[in-house]
Amino acid sequence: MSYFQRHIFFCLNQRDNGENSCAQHGAQAGFDHCKSRVKKLGLAGPGGVRVNKAGCLDRCAGGPVAVVYPDATWYSFVDNEDIDEIVESHLKNGQVVERLVLPANVGK
Amino acid sequence: MSYFQRHIFFCLNQRDNGENSCAQHGAQAGFDHCKSRVKKLGLAGPGGVRVNKAGCLDRCAGGPVAVVYPDATWYSFVDNEDIDEIVESHLKNGQVVERLVLPANVGK
Repeated sequence: MSYFQRHIFFCLNQRDNGENSCAQHGAQAGFDHCKSRVKKLGLAGPGGVRVNKAGCLDRCAGGPVAVVYPDATWYSFVDNEDIDEIVESHLKNGQVVERLVLPANVGK
Repeated sequence: MSYFQRHIFFCLNQRDNGENSCAQHGAQAGFDHCKSRVKKLGLAGPGGVRVNKAGCLDRCAGGPVAVVYPDATWYSFVDNEDIDEIVESHLKNGQVVERLVLPANVGK
């Protein structure tokens, strides 16, 4: 069994060379909101959900992005409502939010 | 299918409050070595392996730690030989390195 039932990683990468990066597109706000919601719903911790900071996830063209493991589901999100849906549907109930899934061909 | 066949996350967390953290125990060196080995072996990229920076993975007592997804295999490593074995055995060939697996009861 997985130590965390679901482990979501948010790219918080900030590029300083002028290139696009998730940090310029609300990644930190998405992470903060997700972390707070998961805690409020009592989902956080071993056997439950872990909301994690990550460096560049290398799918920058879809940023801001996050990935849920062990499901290996990738998301692109826009606002807090998107995050709420990922938390409620996927992290809590295991149902993928299809409308937010990153298309397979979106890469760096 | 998973966008990356195997995605390894290294905790690089640095605590500034005097508490223990992976960054004080060679986490950055482990990450750098892993990234370099994976690249040299031609394993990096979509369909292959991604070596990723992460914030605190919340299993600090076993630090430095890394987790391989979607397998959900957690490792505690000491030196570059440990990293070489994880790369060769697990990331390349899919065989868990049992001697480095973090015991299930190791937490924060």
